[in-house]
Amino acid sequence: MLNEIDFPKDIKNMNEKALKQLAKEIRYFLIKSVSKTGGHLASNLGVVELTLALHYCFDLPDDKIIWDVGHQAYIHKILTGRKKQFCKLRQLNGLSGFPKPHESEYDVFAAGHSSTSISAALGIAKARDLKGGQNHVIAVIGDGAMSGGLAYEALNNAAKENTNLIVILNDNEMSISNNVGAMSRYLTHLRTDSAYIQAKESFQNFSKKIPVVGNMANFLFDKMRLSAKFFLLPGMIFEEMGFHYIGPINGHNLSELNEVFQNVKQMRGPLLIHVKTKKGKGYRYAEQQPSKYHGVSKFDMKTGELIGVTDKQDYSAVFGKKLTELAEKNTNILALTAAMASGTGLLDFQKKFPKRFFDVAIAEQHGVTFSAGLACQGMIPVFAVYSTFLQRAYDQIVHDVCMQKLHVIFAIDRAGIVGADGETHQGVFDIAYLSHIPNMTLLSPKNKWELQNMLDFAIQYPHTIAIRYPRGTASEQFEKYRQQIVYGKSEVIQYGEKVALLAEGHMIAFAMEAAEKLKQQNINAFVVNMRFLKPLDEEILKKTANCCEYIVTIEDGIKQGGFGSKVLEYYSENNIYGVKVICLGFPDKYIEQGTPQELYKLYGLDGDGIYQNIIKIMSLKGKKES
Amino acid sequence: MLNEIDFPKDIKNMNEKALKQLAKEIRYFLIKSVSKTGGHLASNLGVVELTLALHYCFDLPDDKIIWDVGHQAYIHKILTGRKKQFCKLRQLNGLSGFPKPHESEYDVFAAGHSSTSISAALGIAKARDLKGGQNHVIAVIGDGAMSGGLAYEALNNAAKENTNLIVILNDNEMSISNNVGAMSRYLTHLRTDSAYIQAKESFQNFSKKIPVVGNMANFLFDKMRLSAKFFLLPGMIFEEMGFHYIGPINGHNLSELNEVFQNVKQMRGPLLIHVKTKKGKGYRYAEQQPSKYHGVSKFDMKTGELIGVTDKQDYSAVFGKKLTELAEKNTNILALTAAMASGTGLLDFQKKFPKRFFDVAIAEQHGVTFSAGLACQGMIPVFAVYSTFLQRAYDQIVHDVCMQKLHVIFAIDRAGIVGADGETHQGVFDIAYLSHIPNMTLLSPKNKWELQNMLDFAIQYPHTIAIRYPRGTASEQFEKYRQQIVYGKSEVIQYGEKVALLAEGHMIAFAMEAAEKLKQQNINAFVVNMRFLKPLDEEILKKTANCCEYIVTIEDGIKQGGFGSKVLEYYSENNIYGVKVICLGFPDKYIEQGTPQELYKLYGLDGDGIYQNIIKIMSLKGKKES
Repeated sequence: MLNEIDFPKDIKNMNEKALKQLAKEIRYFLIKSVSKTGGHLASNLGVVELTLALHYCFDLPDDKIIWDVGHQAYIHKILTGRKKQFCKLRQLNGLSGFPKPHESEYDVFAAGHSSTSISAALGIAKARDLKGGQNHVIAVIGDGAMSGGLAYEALNNAAKENTNLIVILNDNEMSISNNVGAMSRYLTHLRTDSAYIQAKESFQNFSKKIPVVGNMANFLFDKMRLSAKFFLLPGMIFEEMGFHYIGPINGHNLSELNEVFQNVKQMRGPLLIHVKTKKGKGYRYAEQQPSKYHGVSKFDMKTGELIGVTDKQDYSAVFGKKLTELAEKNTNILALTAAMASGTGLLDFQKKFPKRFFDVAIAEQHGVTFSAGLACQGMIPVFAVYSTFLQRAYDQIVHDVCMQKLHVIFAIDRAGIVGADGETHQGVFDIAYLSHIPNMTLLSPKNKWELQNMLDFAIQYPHTIAIRYPRGTASEQFEKYRQQIVYGKSEVIQYGEKVALLAEGHMIAFAMEAAEKLKQQNINAFVVNMRFLKPLDEEILKKTANCCEYIVTIEDGIKQGGFGSKVLEYYSENNIYGVKVICLGFPDKYIEQGTPQELYKLYGLDGDGIYQNIIKIMSLKGKKES
Repeated sequence: MLNEIDFPKDIKNMNEKALKQLAKEIRYFLIKSVSKTGGHLASNLGVVELTLALHYCFDLPDDKIIWDVGHQAYIHKILTGRKKQFCKLRQLNGLSGFPKPHESEYDVFAAGHSSTSISAALGIAKARDLKGGQNHVIAVIGDGAMSGGLAYEALNNAAKENTNLIVILNDNEMSISNNVGAMSRYLTHLRTDSAYIQAKESFQNFSKKIPVVGNMANFLFDKMRLSAKFFLLPGMIFEEMGFHYIGPINGHNLSELNEVFQNVKQMRGPLLIHVKTKKGKGYRYAEQQPSKYHGVSKFDMKTGELIGVTDKQDYSAVFGKKLTELAEKNTNILALTAAMASGTGLLDFQKKFPKRFFDVAIAEQHGVTFSAGLACQGMIPVFAVYSTFLQRAYDQIVHDVCMQKLHVIFAIDRAGIVGADGETHQGVFDIAYLSHIPNMTLLSPKNKWELQNMLDFAIQYPHTIAIRYPRGTASEQFEKYRQQIVYGKSEVIQYGEKVALLAEGHMIAFAMEAAEKLKQQNINAFVVNMRFLKPLDEEILKKTANCCEYIVTIEDGIKQGGFGSKVLEYYSENNIYGVKVICLGFPDKYIEQGTPQELYKLYGLDGDGIYQNIIKIMSLKGKKES
């Protein structure tokens, strides 16, 4: 049946039985397809019926669906002309794993980070109002994303704007409410039934007309009225924020979903529909371990076994293990995460030190200011967070942590290229947005032992400090290079002349590959592992400027405002002119999806790319050359 | 009486009558003192009794008060040894207008931006728990700051941590609740009275013991229990978030405040005390116009007349007027503010186009993503926002606006040095944090006419664009320089040789002063108004590199990652070596309070400072000089 489905129009005339069959086929397609490419599985299996019902009841692209985070939009993509592209899901030049307006007119707003959908939907709804449109605008947001402050700001504003807006709370973890069962189904029916709505409106009009007899009477009556309302409704918190609450609804019951969606099309004002779903629904292994099958690599469809997963430790594991060891000796050490205990390698720490572990939910801003509060009382909070998500706490780092020189340690995971998640998730901005903040110290390790040593150093160093390290297997190259970590000092890998390669973190491996190639051209390059991206090692910058004609900076991040840029600033500030600095890094654009290897190659940042860059520039004559 | 008060211990033995007299004297001191120095008046007059009661009932510095925003901490400063420093309030090397831990052990956490206090207080409370302390931790937050997502993230997390934490909601605008009067006083007494608390706890224990008779009974009982609770309590939203709610309380009634604070010292878990206060309380003019007297210049104490206020238009007014004119011709133009309609010059726009004006509350993140939603549907949202507050929406600019190249216009007010508000408010980071974002266009006008022309340009330009302009009077210098705004093109003010001065925005005035001084040394400087900080005018960069030995960049912002840094990047990227670039801007530290004039001078950025900088470097021999 799925073979004949390409666009929403193809499902409009289906009956419920056919829709149920289609849901089954979509699940099979999803599991089979993702088993071959990898991708987000559990979250998509959880919204098969929800997505079908939305496309069945609403009229896209006139009606707009805004997917929060967006990794749950696979079914939406299948139903909007992109089924055949799933074989290249999340690959270079392939289908994105997130909504992308440039892919389809059915994707109205791009996503990737959490908690943006209500804000965006409110904007889209107000634009519709101003243009006199009548279409529906629907934000689909998970219960996890609801913990983000941005979602709250949007709810708060939506009630005031009082426009027609539908927020679907996709609740797959029972963290908001446990009111399931017979009564809630009854209430759902009641509350979306037009007779009920009329009754409620009548009651409200009636109650507004009762004359006020003094303050006390008014107060008591207000309380009664609200109390009566509350008696009827779960989800009071949303009602208090000005939303009409509907639910909870069984998100795997197509007829219930269709009934509710048809009914709400007649309703006005901001609505919140609470839909209960099960992550991984319909695939045994994913239902049992939704976290494991949230974002997966390739796997065996029959056994659920992941394929090609390496046994090697990744940087997150190295970090988590080391931090746990340190915490045994120093009771002031605390670990924090924003809903990423597993991803950041903190599960063991959590188990061992439950009172010293804090999961603040998807709330990076609070995670940072909370850390500042802990640190101002002598604790040593270590906030482990992905580079791309820490962007959300830029102001808190500037205003609450660094201004007070507080001893907060940022363990920045997934720094640099992350790969298949693409534009929204590449951790390429952190050097630029952290290195210009006063009082910040920023480090980057070349391998797993250096990460451990940097953590030792960070615990001892009394002010703000951040360590950035990449996604994936922790490097075991350069094992013998173990110079002690000294504040603001780099590590020379090899002395040389003419060309100095100053590398950030794991890029040292590519730098050495380039140095090997240069050697074949009889150029003996000076190679430095910078370690400190802020403050820079001024001594090595002077030294290399003295003995080399070309200084090549190499970093896993954007060039603009990056580490190379800081090297340029240093030479300018110290009136060291005439040095030929070549900054290598990612250009001034959003970096697309692809494997890290593909992307380093594409942007000339692997060993060969670095070599080619240098050779090309050496063959040019610099203007105003000395 | 105030003469004998220096520290909290001096008020501990006072009776209520004496405290009331002290409150009166403090008000007089505040009005008199601020009338001479300028400063935040209305908000401080509103918390005289609240601050007295806090210091009377709690034991600082063991107990900790965290002031949100912090401009309401004057009375706290008076009571903690800093009374005599009020003559230098908000002046260079004088007393800060915000809490500063380096000033006093009674200031536990620095503030300036909104909505940080609950996060910080939670950190301080958890640190206390881990250390086995028993002290109280109190966050004082306004109802306005409660709209910030950070405050919500903290409330959400506090309930989970279930520690002893007191949040005082200083409600001076009735935006949260109108439940004032006899009943609420009664409830307040009831709810903080220990007999009542015991009764409530008994009821809760009892109700938990009732056996469950099927789902329906359980559901109904839950509803009844909650309903009963709700009937007793206003502030349900806080109760649902896990806080014990107390209030509302009359924030100007010392005996009521003292009673409540003494009672809550015995209570456990997270508490929210809702205190109603009146901004400007006790000073007629400030009570009548609390906005006008929120942050004031010097004024005549008797008449309330502001002193030394210029009639000249500031940049905010120029912006607001121009935008209103443009909006008359183009109905797609919308204006947004985050609770700063007056400060950003949008009052007229609001009046004229109420449906096209959006005050999103203190919620910069939502303001930006909401703008993105509006823009993706063809609207032209113009978000007017202070430079320092836009820091909070860095991720939304990266992820929601620029990635999609959406036509959102950022009107960045208070860019560069703002003066008396000091470290937390200087708008010195925006060039650094915006210019490295792909797809961003960033402009800066030299005078009021150029701001108008840049707005014309921004409306026509179809992608993301930001215009930064400073606080204060809009410049009317350089009136005759009116070259058309062309994408990526600068404006030459005068041609010259040897030294090129490339200036950002209003810094062109200082650049020209420096050029005059250079002329006296027979140096005819090339002077350029850059206009575009991103993208840079590559043609002028090439041209000046050809005809000048020194390129001097001048900006009202930090040097690290700033516009000068981007000039260095351009020359490096294009293999133009040997140019001597001198970057002038603020150094890598938080810039203290002082008048803008004092600070430009202090950091060598006024006309003379620029001149001296250039002369000094010209007299040096650059290393590796050509």
